[in-house]
Amino acid sequence: MSATNSVSFAPPPDPASLLRRERENASIDPLAMHRFIEGSAEKSSQILRLYSSLERDPVMAASYRDYELDLEEQRELTTMRINRMTRYIETDTASDFARRLNLVTIYDPSMGIRISVNLGLFLNCIRGNGTSDQYEYWAKHHESAIMKQMYGCFGMTELGHGSNVAGCETTATFDKEKDEFVINTPHIGATKWWIGGAAHSATHSVVYARLLVDGKDYGVKTFVVPLRDSNHDLLPGISVGDIGAKMGREGVDNGWIQYSNVRIPRFFMLQKWCRVSAEGKVTLPPLEQLSYISLLGGRVMMAVDSYRMSARFITVALRYAVGRRQFKSQSTRDGKETQLLDYPLHQKRLLPYLALAYAMAVGSNKLEIQHGEIVANLEKAVANNDKKGIEQSIALTKSLFVDSGSLKSTYTWLTADCINEARQSCGGLGYSSYNGFGKTYGDWVVQCTWEGDNNVLGMSAGKTIINNLKLAVQKNKSISGSLSYLSRGRQGMSDKYVLGQDSDVESPEKVLEALETLIIRVAGTALNTLSDNGNDWDSISHTRVLLSKLQCHRYTLFTFIERVAENKDTQLEEALVLLLKLYYQVNILQAFAGEFLTYNVMSGQVQASVSLRAIPSTLTALRPHAIILSDSFQQPDMILNSAIGRYNGDIYENYYGVVKAANPPIRDKAPYSAAFQAMLNRPDLQTRERFEKWGAAKMKLSK
Amino acid sequence: MSATNSVSFAPPPDPASLLRRERENASIDPLAMHRFIEGSAEKSSQILRLYSSLERDPVMAASYRDYELDLEEQRELTTMRINRMTRYIETDTASDFARRLNLVTIYDPSMGIRISVNLGLFLNCIRGNGTSDQYEYWAKHHESAIMKQMYGCFGMTELGHGSNVAGCETTATFDKEKDEFVINTPHIGATKWWIGGAAHSATHSVVYARLLVDGKDYGVKTFVVPLRDSNHDLLPGISVGDIGAKMGREGVDNGWIQYSNVRIPRFFMLQKWCRVSAEGKVTLPPLEQLSYISLLGGRVMMAVDSYRMSARFITVALRYAVGRRQFKSQSTRDGKETQLLDYPLHQKRLLPYLALAYAMAVGSNKLEIQHGEIVANLEKAVANNDKKGIEQSIALTKSLFVDSGSLKSTYTWLTADCINEARQSCGGLGYSSYNGFGKTYGDWVVQCTWEGDNNVLGMSAGKTIINNLKLAVQKNKSISGSLSYLSRGRQGMSDKYVLGQDSDVESPEKVLEALETLIIRVAGTALNTLSDNGNDWDSISHTRVLLSKLQCHRYTLFTFIERVAENKDTQLEEALVLLLKLYYQVNILQAFAGEFLTYNVMSGQVQASVSLRAIPSTLTALRPHAIILSDSFQQPDMILNSAIGRYNGDIYENYYGVVKAANPPIRDKAPYSAAFQAMLNRPDLQTRERFEKWGAAKMKLSK
Repeated sequence: MSATNSVSFAPPPDPASLLRRERENASIDPLAMHRFIEGSAEKSSQILRLYSSLERDPVMAASYRDYELDLEEQRELTTMRINRMTRYIETDTASDFARRLNLVTIYDPSMGIRISVNLGLFLNCIRGNGTSDQYEYWAKHHESAIMKQMYGCFGMTELGHGSNVAGCETTATFDKEKDEFVINTPHIGATKWWIGGAAHSATHSVVYARLLVDGKDYGVKTFVVPLRDSNHDLLPGISVGDIGAKMGREGVDNGWIQYSNVRIPRFFMLQKWCRVSAEGKVTLPPLEQLSYISLLGGRVMMAVDSYRMSARFITVALRYAVGRRQFKSQSTRDGKETQLLDYPLHQKRLLPYLALAYAMAVGSNKLEIQHGEIVANLEKAVANNDKKGIEQSIALTKSLFVDSGSLKSTYTWLTADCINEARQSCGGLGYSSYNGFGKTYGDWVVQCTWEGDNNVLGMSAGKTIINNLKLAVQKNKSISGSLSYLSRGRQGMSDKYVLGQDSDVESPEKVLEALETLIIRVAGTALNTLSDNGNDWDSISHTRVLLSKLQCHRYTLFTFIERVAENKDTQLEEALVLLLKLYYQVNILQAFAGEFLTYNVMSGQVQASVSLRAIPSTLTALRPHAIILSDSFQQPDMILNSAIGRYNGDIYENYYGVVKAANPPIRDKAPYSAAFQAMLNRPDLQTRERFEKWGAAKMKLSK
Repeated sequence: MSATNSVSFAPPPDPASLLRRERENASIDPLAMHRFIEGSAEKSSQILRLYSSLERDPVMAASYRDYELDLEEQRELTTMRINRMTRYIETDTASDFARRLNLVTIYDPSMGIRISVNLGLFLNCIRGNGTSDQYEYWAKHHESAIMKQMYGCFGMTELGHGSNVAGCETTATFDKEKDEFVINTPHIGATKWWIGGAAHSATHSVVYARLLVDGKDYGVKTFVVPLRDSNHDLLPGISVGDIGAKMGREGVDNGWIQYSNVRIPRFFMLQKWCRVSAEGKVTLPPLEQLSYISLLGGRVMMAVDSYRMSARFITVALRYAVGRRQFKSQSTRDGKETQLLDYPLHQKRLLPYLALAYAMAVGSNKLEIQHGEIVANLEKAVANNDKKGIEQSIALTKSLFVDSGSLKSTYTWLTADCINEARQSCGGLGYSSYNGFGKTYGDWVVQCTWEGDNNVLGMSAGKTIINNLKLAVQKNKSISGSLSYLSRGRQGMSDKYVLGQDSDVESPEKVLEALETLIIRVAGTALNTLSDNGNDWDSISHTRVLLSKLQCHRYTLFTFIERVAENKDTQLEEALVLLLKLYYQVNILQAFAGEFLTYNVMSGQVQASVSLRAIPSTLTALRPHAIILSDSFQQPDMILNSAIGRYNGDIYENYYGVVKAANPPIRDKAPYSAAFQAMLNRPDLQTRERFEKWGAAKMKLSK
């Protein structure tokens, strides 16, 4: 029995022994599984090394105190951690620092985004839209790439314009005479809003503003506009304010900015793709979307974050579910209450999210690799002025817009669901700040809105899918990339079952075919609707979002199947196949049952069999592996930062210890106690009314 | 154009005019609709009167400042408001005060629950389980019914036992010699946990503890145990601590309590149903559930809260959706961007929650009335010692356990979804604290866990449904109450479509029949599973929760149909029918499409028609009424407490004004600014390393 910090009259519950038992009975090496999850031995060992470095760092390490801070304190802590990170950026390799930032983001998303706005959005915008000289100047000469001298923010969103960036109303008017741009906020709606770092940190902004030359509007382009001087004082013409309290991420000083006819030299315009000559001649970019390329990296990392955040909370919830006993089930033999995770309902609530975390790990890992390659190739092609290379990279970028948009939106939604379900599965203790769910949920859900609202991304990806299907069926064109399966368009459009026999769902490849078929049929129906209603895309927006979700699962399932087939470590085989199955049984076949049935891809009988037999049987088979499969995520206690979720499983002592440390019982009266006591001990109403309505008053006044 | 608080170079957006236009074109009187929603003209006018009283009360009125408080400040504000409420409780009628408390709970749930724990849980427990003398003594003589002299808390949940109350481990050992009970916490797991008001407010607790008499365990009974003396000091043997930070409801001083052999007189046991004589003779209650009857009122009010909270946020989201423009849709004619609510996707996201809020209003209103009648009848029967009346009331109470459990769980889940979807539909502005979503979501979601965990309530209700179906089909028994439709059990079990034609879903009665049929078939399948697997109820727990959700919708749909049929105000007719249809099309037929199709209650072709034709057509018809239908909830700006959701619709000016008031731009440097500047201006790495690795050092040290 583990050490306790409380006196007992009787033996207390011993949840730690239950976790130990799970691990003793495990047949999987969690480190081997971690290598599978992360995709390579190198990446796995890099992550473990960085976890250890963060855990030991006095500033970077999280604790329960992170959950108790008010807004000012959160911002101060975030600043201390950013400062600490600047020391690592000077000594880490680029790969180590990027991964370190990604890992800190799991437990301190405020700090993560505050740095990512500078290094990711601001600098990627300069890198993607600026010339190499411009990047060299701002990033290297001014040292912003190591968070020194200057700190950038990303002035895209306006109060009146979020998703529709092309509708931004901030103006950048070219003044030929002075060779300057005049940046101006024309009205309240064009106030730059939500700008991370603007309120108190940023020295510079990149601004998305309408380029106006000789009275002509060339649309939204990007400009570097300084906000604060080297004394950190606001420059004239710059109005900035703090956006204040938020649902989460309170460590971030989001601000609003108004520009009042601020002048910048012409060469502060980012001009890799778009240029304005001294004479006012405008050269436009080959693809308007290129100016949003800086957002792609963020979307890719949000897919990665989704996996790590889901892994974090499913780990906590599973450890609690094994250590917690509740009610006696009919199968209880030892007279004790049953462990939560031995209930089929509890398995059904949690294990699909465990499988989903694995699926998202595999899917986001692939997306991250693809993104890295495409960006590197594009940069190389631009450096060599290789026109064909540029074209190829642009084509791949378009495909990446679909995949990253679908994965970002679907994964971030599912992760919000995962945190929510994991919290509810821990009952009341999930509601306590010290177990991490509440703050993290508040921090997390903005991912569904920013850097591409999930519905807008979904609609956009869905439109591309429908357009590609049209090319395939109407022009017989062969589609490449992750939409290549659309090439068999017409073939998929019959109404024959793909999953007509119970045994069909045993084969992941068959399920993949069914999923592709469903996408083809849904998109095909949408095409018919469009031709009936004169191409009213808005009328099928719901279907477009649905298609994007299905495409995300198609990408993920395809990759998961591929990875399981490649795996050579036989000890992992059984568990991986079960995770793969549970992933598609619940997250695909059951989640979209209505669609599979309506479009006749799956028969009602197969659906009933999936729900009543296949899923319960996978859950039962996976149950014994649950703890070791979550241990395999290898997130240390510091990262989990959850009193009930610690590795040793001593739920009650750990949690009680944190609650007592954070709220010493000796403070037995609250600061407001006197007010409360005065209320309880108040005189009665007649006394407080000075007896004006009774007795002597009545006798005197009612004569 | 409305007054502005910002300088413009160009005309700003004018969202207020868009809201005005909606109201000018409306054909419904929102006050007439309010009477329908609240169920009677009396209740409607009572609510409007109380709204006005709260709005004008300097302490009770909410403002954006409520969103910026840290834990200590929230508790202090809550205390001030409780104090203020004690003045109303002395002067309001009982009905007015109960309604007032219910209305405050919409915008200050922390205050709501802090009072409800005392007046609802604590006193209802004494009323439900104590003799009339006991109630008289504690509530009246000690004035706790007017929150004077004493303040009660509700010691049910333990650290190791939440849902399984019967498994509580706190002991109440009868000491015959001294005629006392000894209350004791045997170990850490039996620590009373989450006890609202325990940390700093409560003077007394009711304790759920195992009754031990002469070594025999009689199960969990209820006892009054004082915590603090009249000086508000903790009594000896009582250990109390603050539970600290939470995901929400931080205004509530939830605490933990450990009892160390605390002695109370025998007459502190609540002994209406269960008694221990001086000689140790134990009389047990006629129905063990009666000791949980004090929870019923809370569940009923949570159903009511669900309606009001959904109404609040759907009002905010709809006003924003009308005032906000985004992108130009193909149908745009005036050159301006399209209003969000004119997009079919946005209609699909929000209008079903509008319909749901109406459905929940109607459903919860009926539940509230039923609960009031049952409790009154039971009390009357007990007072008259009317055995038959008691039996009847107990039967009705059992039925109320099913309905209140189903409505509480399903409604609270759906309301969490509603707040979430409404927030996301407001884009980034939904994430700002000043619009109310974040704090309210955090405050809200505990409703899914406390006073009956939603899954546990669902399983329990589902079990009753299955057992009643068994009685109907196997014993041919006729079922009464809200499960009476189960009486046609066998008949519903064929596999014929109920909804086989597109036109079938036009009839609400037909849909009701389909829903009842689905319940019968799902429960019937569950019965078969049970008889196959030796009555393993755990294996069908997922189905049981599903049945509870379906039963909730059956109760709601039935009531909604009934209410629409009764309505005599013809101006409301069209909108009510549309709301009723949208409610069942989306929340029933589409939400449970997989089940309707799998169980052959609806054909795939009808399902496709519902999704592709019926729902879009209802949405289009309802769109013009959206604003007036949310205005009809009559929640004033103070209750909404949302800058973007105010009645005048001047979204941007309202919100910008609040942000500036809360965060004056003149504070242009943060308290941590110096640290941030020092970071940016740090010397380079070599300097900070004292040049130890280079130059002179290298020459000296590498010899």
